[in-house]
Amino acid sequence: MSDSSLAPPAVFMELHAGNRKRLVAALRAHLSTSGRPLHGIVLLKGGEEQTLYCTDRVPLFRQESYFAYLFGVREPGFYGAVDIASGQSILFAPRLTLDDAIWNGEKELSSFKDMYRVDFVFYVDDLAQVLRCQFSEHGEPLLFLLYGKNTDSGNYSKPASFEGIEKFDTDLSTLHPILTECRVIKSDMELAFIQYANDVSSKAHIEVMRQIKPGMKEFQLESIFIHHASMHEGCRHCSYTCICATGHNSSTLHYGHAGAPNDQTLNDGDMALMDMGAEYNFYGSDITCSYPINGKFKRNQTIVYNAILRAHNDVISHMQPGVRWIDMHKLAEQRILESLKKENIIHGDIGDMMNQRLGAVFMPHGLGHLLGIDTHDPGGYPKGLERPKEPGLRSLRTIRELKEGMVITVEPGCYFIGTLLRHAKDDPISSKFFNWEKIEMYKSFGGVRIESNLYVTAQGCKNLTNCPRETWEIEAVMAGAPWPSRDDCSSATTTKNGLPKT
Amino acid sequence: MSDSSLAPPAVFMELHAGNRKRLVAALRAHLSTSGRPLHGIVLLKGGEEQTLYCTDRVPLFRQESYFAYLFGVREPGFYGAVDIASGQSILFAPRLTLDDAIWNGEKELSSFKDMYRVDFVFYVDDLAQVLRCQFSEHGEPLLFLLYGKNTDSGNYSKPASFEGIEKFDTDLSTLHPILTECRVIKSDMELAFIQYANDVSSKAHIEVMRQIKPGMKEFQLESIFIHHASMHEGCRHCSYTCICATGHNSSTLHYGHAGAPNDQTLNDGDMALMDMGAEYNFYGSDITCSYPINGKFKRNQTIVYNAILRAHNDVISHMQPGVRWIDMHKLAEQRILESLKKENIIHGDIGDMMNQRLGAVFMPHGLGHLLGIDTHDPGGYPKGLERPKEPGLRSLRTIRELKEGMVITVEPGCYFIGTLLRHAKDDPISSKFFNWEKIEMYKSFGGVRIESNLYVTAQGCKNLTNCPRETWEIEAVMAGAPWPSRDDCSSATTTKNGLPKT
Repeated sequence: MSDSSLAPPAVFMELHAGNRKRLVAALRAHLSTSGRPLHGIVLLKGGEEQTLYCTDRVPLFRQESYFAYLFGVREPGFYGAVDIASGQSILFAPRLTLDDAIWNGEKELSSFKDMYRVDFVFYVDDLAQVLRCQFSEHGEPLLFLLYGKNTDSGNYSKPASFEGIEKFDTDLSTLHPILTECRVIKSDMELAFIQYANDVSSKAHIEVMRQIKPGMKEFQLESIFIHHASMHEGCRHCSYTCICATGHNSSTLHYGHAGAPNDQTLNDGDMALMDMGAEYNFYGSDITCSYPINGKFKRNQTIVYNAILRAHNDVISHMQPGVRWIDMHKLAEQRILESLKKENIIHGDIGDMMNQRLGAVFMPHGLGHLLGIDTHDPGGYPKGLERPKEPGLRSLRTIRELKEGMVITVEPGCYFIGTLLRHAKDDPISSKFFNWEKIEMYKSFGGVRIESNLYVTAQGCKNLTNCPRETWEIEAVMAGAPWPSRDDCSSATTTKNGLPKT
Repeated sequence: MSDSSLAPPAVFMELHAGNRKRLVAALRAHLSTSGRPLHGIVLLKGGEEQTLYCTDRVPLFRQESYFAYLFGVREPGFYGAVDIASGQSILFAPRLTLDDAIWNGEKELSSFKDMYRVDFVFYVDDLAQVLRCQFSEHGEPLLFLLYGKNTDSGNYSKPASFEGIEKFDTDLSTLHPILTECRVIKSDMELAFIQYANDVSSKAHIEVMRQIKPGMKEFQLESIFIHHASMHEGCRHCSYTCICATGHNSSTLHYGHAGAPNDQTLNDGDMALMDMGAEYNFYGSDITCSYPINGKFKRNQTIVYNAILRAHNDVISHMQPGVRWIDMHKLAEQRILESLKKENIIHGDIGDMMNQRLGAVFMPHGLGHLLGIDTHDPGGYPKGLERPKEPGLRSLRTIRELKEGMVITVEPGCYFIGTLLRHAKDDPISSKFFNWEKIEMYKSFGGVRIESNLYVTAQGCKNLTNCPRETWEIEAVMAGAPWPSRDDCSSATTTKNGLPKT
């Protein structure tokens, strides 16, 4: 691995213009099919800065994701509009006071037009008038507003609102599913940014691998990752809070939050589970590496690790358009159960275990999720697709068929979670599958997860992540061997089915 | 400066217990004076995790500051109560589901009692019943809730609410001013944490000074600071978004936000203005260093820098209990104007300039603010104290008399802000004070700020910040000289009037 910085994609505003173009095409196709007129205005409100509780402390602003997708605007307080008839785009910027200029800097309205490459810019307080006058060709324009449910959070997006909106006709149902579906399929330019975030994060993970040693604190691993991504590659945001779990902590899936703030001392002989991803120009990555803190896999660590690696690789080799994601989840579960059975950690018929949903005891989360501007990118459950109810399966953030252009994480894991194992032991049917003596030996093991980001191609998929995955590769890199080797250092390695070259 | 880590204070929960004790004493004194019964229950609601817009992305939780002050709880979703009669404290923790245990970790209720050293712990859903039964000695208890205005943001704190609260008598006016006043005067334990945050930040600033060079990007300076504070000293939060402004950017007071994300390339010959502070166990620091990117002060940089240093030092030498902060602000303005006049950048009578509020053209912000769990700690304008209306003075976050135990920032600055200079030029009275030819030479200079954190003592004040301040010290440290020198490396240097040793 070279110490030089990576080069981010050179396109920025072309990307967002492309996103708007795809939205307009999709909307026009939809309206045309329903026999509705091909005009109206898409209107979105960007995010606002929020203060922390009652104070004036303002956490670093991050744009709302749908607004970022269409306009790429970094600042708070904007509105954005797209005219469906002409495809023209307008940004409405907040009007600055003298105090704003002093505290936040002077900015000419026209500078936003140059920066964000839209057709027009106006002030927010002129919004109603501009919408009425600029686009009155077809009479008072119909406003398409964004309103719909995020199937991961259960929250609803808040439709744009402004003084005088009651005088416009509005449509709250059309835009959300269509815009969401646009976000599901990534353009080449979007892919370039996700690839960049992956390249940065892969490098930063390797930096952590090389610096980790017993006696350090978990938060130091977080610090190394964030610093590397920011200092060398300009990623000011991470896609999510870093999970730096070692030893038993790695059985807490979202370890690293305020109540478990990556603050344990690293023990010689324990495993580390590092789930960290950087974000660049809104687009993210989501990568997990698991490895022994001291750089040498012990036998039981190799067993669990290889069970997960086999599931990870097998899923990737099966991925292609048309494949159902729920089947990939079950495939991963089956491979994990087979491996555990081989080691006599569980016993019995694999089919019976699958029927009993035993896989969810070891992997209670879903196999993976769509990835883009959001770490859990929306569109996992479009209308008509119901979330399963069974353990494990109900944690899936999507059960869709794969389509060319999707980016999705593959993140099988195996954890020894006290509360789930106790439940399984108390259940007379589940209980008999376990070799409880063996399980006891793993009770403070924690867990292993391997997570890569995959781009679905016409024939298969491309692995955007480039971290050492085989145990011998990991041991070599942790001992100082170069990664990637000289002949495949151009972004991520890939083969027809997305497996890293070995 | 040694490369070894600093040692944070060993007390944690004693600090918060001490804070509760002081609140109870202050409340009892107040109730007693007003002839009211000396019982009732202080009830606060801690912060909740917030998702970003409609997504399930959850920024790292930071506890609400009043709640942090009294209970030190790191996790979201808690309530906390203090019984005024007995001084006993109770925490109410959210009841976890099986899913919570899997995703966020298992935690026994009793573990919170041990961790946070309170007298009782219960679940949130038992709150109404516990309040009614546990403290029924004096009949149904009166609940003292937190409701009041933050004078920096203009926001109001949200009083605790829970199912069944309507059956209790509540008092919304007593608690806020008393609890706020408790926060204004720092205990020794609180001071120890603010000192630690200062020690960490001083070291991290020096690290930045040593690594800065032309050609770097501003965000790299931010990254070095954050990494140093986190990696070596365990500070996971900064007190505020880093301001890493170079050249002309340093005339934007809150540069570094999303619209101006510290992304300029560093130019040889420009000044850097670095306003960054780490936070530890909720307590913060707020430090600004200004210096030339290439490590050598040019003549005009020395002029502006020394004008500010003189104001900074002169204010500190005057600080002691009873001194009015607005007078310190004016003293700083006067010193700056005197220095600028000496260099013929302005001309005329200093008294006339002061009457004309000319100081606010060069320093439109306030001289400093209370500092503690919030960067802009509350209590700057207690009841009866009105915010001034004049330019510059109206930006003061407090105009109080200094009291022993206050921690306050001293941060004079001088900036060449286009919009303010244009206004001054257009004003026939102000205009005549300026030597516009000279001003033109500074138009892309940016600005200089020097900011230290001061603890008001009985006789004067103690400077908690320990960064090189004299131009020759800065040049030496940037060239690799040790800092602090061997004989004063124990936390911050101090003299009777808080000036750093030179």
